[in-house]
Amino acid sequence: MLDFKIIKKSRKARRGELKTAHGSIQTPAFMPVGTAATVKAMFPESVAATGAEIILGNTYHLMLRPGAELIAQLGGLHQFMGWNKSILTDSGGFQVMSLSQLRKITEEGVSFASHIDGKRYMLSPEKSIEIQYLLDSDITMAFDECMPFPSSYKDVQKSMERSMRWAERSKKSFNNREGYGIFGINQGGMFLDLREFSARKLISIDFDGYAIGGLAVGEGQKIMFQMLDSIPDMLPDNKPRYLMGVGKPSDIVGAVLRGVDMFDCVMPTRSGRTALAFTREGTLNLRNATHQESPNPLDYHCSCPACTHYSRAYLHHLFKAKEILGAMLLTWHNIQYYQDLMHSIRNAIEHDSYEDFAETFFEKQEKSKRPL
Amino acid sequence: MLDFKIIKKSRKARRGELKTAHGSIQTPAFMPVGTAATVKAMFPESVAATGAEIILGNTYHLMLRPGAELIAQLGGLHQFMGWNKSILTDSGGFQVMSLSQLRKITEEGVSFASHIDGKRYMLSPEKSIEIQYLLDSDITMAFDECMPFPSSYKDVQKSMERSMRWAERSKKSFNNREGYGIFGINQGGMFLDLREFSARKLISIDFDGYAIGGLAVGEGQKIMFQMLDSIPDMLPDNKPRYLMGVGKPSDIVGAVLRGVDMFDCVMPTRSGRTALAFTREGTLNLRNATHQESPNPLDYHCSCPACTHYSRAYLHHLFKAKEILGAMLLTWHNIQYYQDLMHSIRNAIEHDSYEDFAETFFEKQEKSKRPL
Repeated sequence: MLDFKIIKKSRKARRGELKTAHGSIQTPAFMPVGTAATVKAMFPESVAATGAEIILGNTYHLMLRPGAELIAQLGGLHQFMGWNKSILTDSGGFQVMSLSQLRKITEEGVSFASHIDGKRYMLSPEKSIEIQYLLDSDITMAFDECMPFPSSYKDVQKSMERSMRWAERSKKSFNNREGYGIFGINQGGMFLDLREFSARKLISIDFDGYAIGGLAVGEGQKIMFQMLDSIPDMLPDNKPRYLMGVGKPSDIVGAVLRGVDMFDCVMPTRSGRTALAFTREGTLNLRNATHQESPNPLDYHCSCPACTHYSRAYLHHLFKAKEILGAMLLTWHNIQYYQDLMHSIRNAIEHDSYEDFAETFFEKQEKSKRPL
Repeated sequence: MLDFKIIKKSRKARRGELKTAHGSIQTPAFMPVGTAATVKAMFPESVAATGAEIILGNTYHLMLRPGAELIAQLGGLHQFMGWNKSILTDSGGFQVMSLSQLRKITEEGVSFASHIDGKRYMLSPEKSIEIQYLLDSDITMAFDECMPFPSSYKDVQKSMERSMRWAERSKKSFNNREGYGIFGINQGGMFLDLREFSARKLISIDFDGYAIGGLAVGEGQKIMFQMLDSIPDMLPDNKPRYLMGVGKPSDIVGAVLRGVDMFDCVMPTRSGRTALAFTREGTLNLRNATHQESPNPLDYHCSCPACTHYSRAYLHHLFKAKEILGAMLLTWHNIQYYQDLMHSIRNAIEHDSYEDFAETFFEKQEKSKRPL
């Protein structure tokens, strides 16, 4: 059971608080991704310093290496990786589906070969929930299938219906206890009647929160926003809503406007390792020669170490010289950017001015040469 | 001019204090290497947190990228890299000599091709000193040649005599000012009479400190210690003595015993990126399967984040998964180990018990399965 309350609404946008065994999460919230028991290139205390209150761990990666049993033996994922705030784990479903040549789906679950050593594994709803239990995940995700875009109505329907049967098995396997919860995942591709069917099914199973899966899979922001004009309304008002794998800052701003509370994405961390910065002026590539001699900070309005202690010229140099510190500083900055954005979003909702906030944000994007 | 005073002696071992424009350095001191304007995988504030009071920068790397003029324009190396304590820069001589196929040595200096883009450069005593001035280096090193081991007496003599002429030109080019100094470099290979000749020549030129070059080039610890039984005694008592590129912890303990004050080496940082840890139990390879399930800290006696927040199993996992955090944590630990060692060394000298300290250290090494 998880405690969730909505503190304030600004039209559809919701300012909430979610409580887990490892603390409170102010929503709308962005979860940095910590795939293999580390948010890449970050000390966990630095992740916390950005304001992040929850991170995401990947069941698929952790079950293969170092193994869920070992993590349980060492006190759980929080203890193992030195992160004492909340953790949400995915179900592994999304990752094993993308091993297109290496996996086989049946009603029971998915059998697949490890990308590390080729060893074969089976992941089912029961197995996925057990692994997430061993990891001591605060928020467990139901095991589901995420369809590629585009897919036919028939294929999406068949897959969604199986995902709903898996959702039921996931819920049954979940060991309910105070401070821990399980989220169901809405599927149905770009077909609203399937989304509606999925939502009703999930609500009848009764989850602690509801995720929206199968978006941001290549359909583009316009179609995604069209889908989000309807899907959140299909979900219970009094439970958190989590849009999986999303996204760019503008995706988040638009999704909050449509009633979404939680997000995760590799974008800030992955970009941080490839010299791409999110700033209040738009996106910047620090490898670009325009930064070579610049004494200016990356972002005047940012309080992170990359922006307060160094010039753009230095960051440029670090990436040109392939220095690890480049990834360390820029990952920190990008996570800080995302957390600052969430902070501003929460503020705007609290002041019941979120529509203005979003409108201003998108106007700026339209004029920007380097949109977010 | 640099202020150096010896606070205490324990036989030949010296406990001193060196003052530069950027602060005091307690000696014996170890300088972490910050080749390309970053101590690899470390935030500068973390380097300072280990107790390091001075780092080394590499003229060769910095002149090629990002360029000394750019660093000067951006306020000097301290400002550029966010390190406000002291910096010693090498002369670039050692690096260009090792580009064996790409360089040509004349009396004027060394012409060489950049390893980055093949562009040709010239490095001479005058040029090297100018670059180190542009970098705002607290301690400038004279431009010299370091001979490989073994080399014939004749070759070493010829090279050393040229290095002494270069030392004279280096000193002449140096812009003497309060808080900044230049060190001469003793050469002469494994030939004590050449070392003696070199020392007299350097003393006649009059430097702010004296380095010992051309050791730790493959001769082994035993021969190095034999050389160090004599060389420090050839150098002025009232000036700091710096053994370049050294070394393993046991090298440092033995060299301090013989009167050396300063050290630098890539070993703690490079090892930190390749899973090799220095601990009070000896060296450990964290990729080794024996650590896979270990809940124990890397080193019970160490106060660094790697040892206080994580298990060996976690560090093992990070290296197996090729996670950047592995390099970040282990580099920190290794620098901490080195700084803790220097702290213990200074303590032992202060208590006039350094011979006991060194004896105990070497006895432990002899019994150790994983000597330092």
